[in-house]
Amino acid sequence: MALTEFSLIQQFFADATQKRQDVIVDIGDDCAVLSCPADSDIAISIDTLVSGIHFFPDVDPHTLGHKSLAVGLSDLAAMGATPAWFTLALTIPSLDEKWLSAFASGMAELADQHNIQLVGGDTTKGPLTISIQVHGLVKKGAQLQRNHAKSSDKIYVTGTLGDAGAALQKRLASWQPEELSEKDWSFLNKRLEQPIPQVNISREIQPFVNAAIDISDGVLADLGHILEASGKGARIYLGKIPLSSSLQKLDKAKAWQLALNSGDDYELCFTVPAEHVQALETLNLDIQQIGEITEEQKIVLLDEQGQPSVLDITSKGYDHFV
Amino acid sequence: MALTEFSLIQQFFADATQKRQDVIVDIGDDCAVLSCPADSDIAISIDTLVSGIHFFPDVDPHTLGHKSLAVGLSDLAAMGATPAWFTLALTIPSLDEKWLSAFASGMAELADQHNIQLVGGDTTKGPLTISIQVHGLVKKGAQLQRNHAKSSDKIYVTGTLGDAGAALQKRLASWQPEELSEKDWSFLNKRLEQPIPQVNISREIQPFVNAAIDISDGVLADLGHILEASGKGARIYLGKIPLSSSLQKLDKAKAWQLALNSGDDYELCFTVPAEHVQALETLNLDIQQIGEITEEQKIVLLDEQGQPSVLDITSKGYDHFV
Repeated sequence: MALTEFSLIQQFFADATQKRQDVIVDIGDDCAVLSCPADSDIAISIDTLVSGIHFFPDVDPHTLGHKSLAVGLSDLAAMGATPAWFTLALTIPSLDEKWLSAFASGMAELADQHNIQLVGGDTTKGPLTISIQVHGLVKKGAQLQRNHAKSSDKIYVTGTLGDAGAALQKRLASWQPEELSEKDWSFLNKRLEQPIPQVNISREIQPFVNAAIDISDGVLADLGHILEASGKGARIYLGKIPLSSSLQKLDKAKAWQLALNSGDDYELCFTVPAEHVQALETLNLDIQQIGEITEEQKIVLLDEQGQPSVLDITSKGYDHFV
Repeated sequence: MALTEFSLIQQFFADATQKRQDVIVDIGDDCAVLSCPADSDIAISIDTLVSGIHFFPDVDPHTLGHKSLAVGLSDLAAMGATPAWFTLALTIPSLDEKWLSAFASGMAELADQHNIQLVGGDTTKGPLTISIQVHGLVKKGAQLQRNHAKSSDKIYVTGTLGDAGAALQKRLASWQPEELSEKDWSFLNKRLEQPIPQVNISREIQPFVNAAIDISDGVLADLGHILEASGKGARIYLGKIPLSSSLQKLDKAKAWQLALNSGDDYELCFTVPAEHVQALETLNLDIQQIGEITEEQKIVLLDEQGQPSVLDITSKGYDHFV
C-alpha cells in the first residue's frame, strides 16, 4: 500500500501513545478537543528541531523521537506542569517507513513514561523539521516562573551539567581528550541524544521553589534569564557544580567551562528561599545547591579558593543567528 | 543592534496581538499558561506551511502571515470553536527584518479581527517553514465533528468554491483563459493568498449542524472525509455549487472541476438535518445548499439536466507524497 499523507499520522502515530480520559476528540478531525480540570490552567510550549542545526542528519531516529519530545517535557517540568497532551508537526523529505517507525517508537516510549498523549499533527514534505507542542496541567497559581527569584534564595540544579556539551564538542570539534574512555563517550552521547526531562523532580520541588527554568543553553545563560526577569544577580560556587564521573576526569577548568556554558543538558535550575531548604533537602532528590541569588545584577563565580571572577549577566548562550 | 534569536519573538511578535485576560503567563517563560473557562473544552490544531510546497518562495510576506494563521482559524471554525490563542514555530533561513515585520503585521491584522493572542513561539534557522498551532474554546459537548452526518441531512458550503484553485492553476500551469480579466485575477489571487476563515459563520450555524469540515483539499475530498467518518454517501447538484462571478465566466465543466477538486478555499462544508433548514435559512448567511447525505457510501454528482456521474468516495484530494 502506498503511504499517503492522510494515513501517515494514522499509521505511525495515532495509536503510538496511551489514551487519556480527558481527550474528547482524538486525532482525525479538524481539531482535537481537550478537557481541562476546573482547578487547573494549561501550560504550553512549542519547540522546533531542524536537521543539521539541532541534530545531526544521521542521528538514530529512535533517539531523535525521544529527544524531540524530551525538549518539550523539560519545558513543562520547568513550569511545574504535569504532562497531558502533545502535537507533532513533522516535515520529512520522503516517506521512509523504517525511519518513521523508529522515530515514532522513540517518541512513544518517552510519552508513555509520562502519560502524555499525541492528539494531533501535520505531516508535510520538505527538509526534515520537527515541531512539537506540549500541553501540561498546572494547578491555578502554582506555575513556576522565571521572574520570582528573591535575594538570598539558594540556587539549585538537578543532575549533572556539561555532559551533553562534551559529547557535542567531540562531534563538532573532534575534541577527544585521552582521559575519557569508550564507556565515558557512550554515557556522554546518551546524555546528548536521550536527555531525561526532570518531570518527576519538578513535581517534588514545586512547593519550595520561587523561580525555575530548564537548562537548554547552559546554566549561565539560563540562570541569566531568571536573573534578568527577576532583576537580580547570583553568586555561584564552582566547586559545587555537579559533574558526572566522566567530566570529573577532565581538567577542572575544562569541566567547569562545559558545565557552565554548554547546552542540551535539559536539567532544571531553580531558586529556593532559605526557609524551605531544610524541607527540600530531606527529600533526598538528585539536586545540588550551587549558589545564591544576590541583589546586585551580575553573576559572581567563586572558585574553590574563593577567588571571584565576574561575568556580565547579559551573556546569552547559544544563538543560531549570531 | 544585532538581532538574536532571543529577541526575535519579543521584537516582532510579542506585542503583535491584543492581550487577553485569560493569558496567565505570556511569551517569555518556559511555557505560556492559559486559563480555560469551566464550561468549555479546548480545541487545538497544528498546521505547517513549507516554502515551495504550500506557498511560492516569492509570496508577499504580509499575505503569508495572514494565510498561515487563516489556515488554523479555518480549522477552529470547522470545529465550532471560538479562537483564543496561538503559537508560532518559525524556521527562517536568515534574519530579514523587513520580511519579518511584514509577516508579523499580516498575521497580527487577522489575529486582531478574531481576538486571538500569540502566546508562544520558537524561531530557528533553516529552510523557511511555518508551523502554527491554534487554540479555541468550545462549550462542552458542542464541538462540530466529522463523523455525525446523518442520512438526508442537507449539505451546505459557505462562500464560493474553486477561486483559489483557479489562481493556483494559472501560476502552476500557465493556464490563462481569455474570459478572465485583470480584475478577475486580482480577485482570484486574493482568494488564494488571503483566504477568509469562516469563524463568524461557524458561530451562527453551530446550533443547526450535524457534521462539519473546512475545505482545504477540495469539497469532494473534504466532504469525503465526513462521509468516511460517518459511514454515509452524498448526492451533489452541480448546478447549485456556488461559483464566483469570475468562475461563472468559464466553461461550466471547467468551473465545476475547479470548485469540486481544488484546494485552498478554506470555506466550510457542513450538514444540517432537514428540521433545522428553515431556521438556518432565515439567518441569511453566505451559504448554499448543494446536496444531501445518502445511505449508500458513494458520491453521486447530478448535472443541471439531472444526469448522474458516480465518483468513488475514496478520492482523496491533494497529497504531498503521491
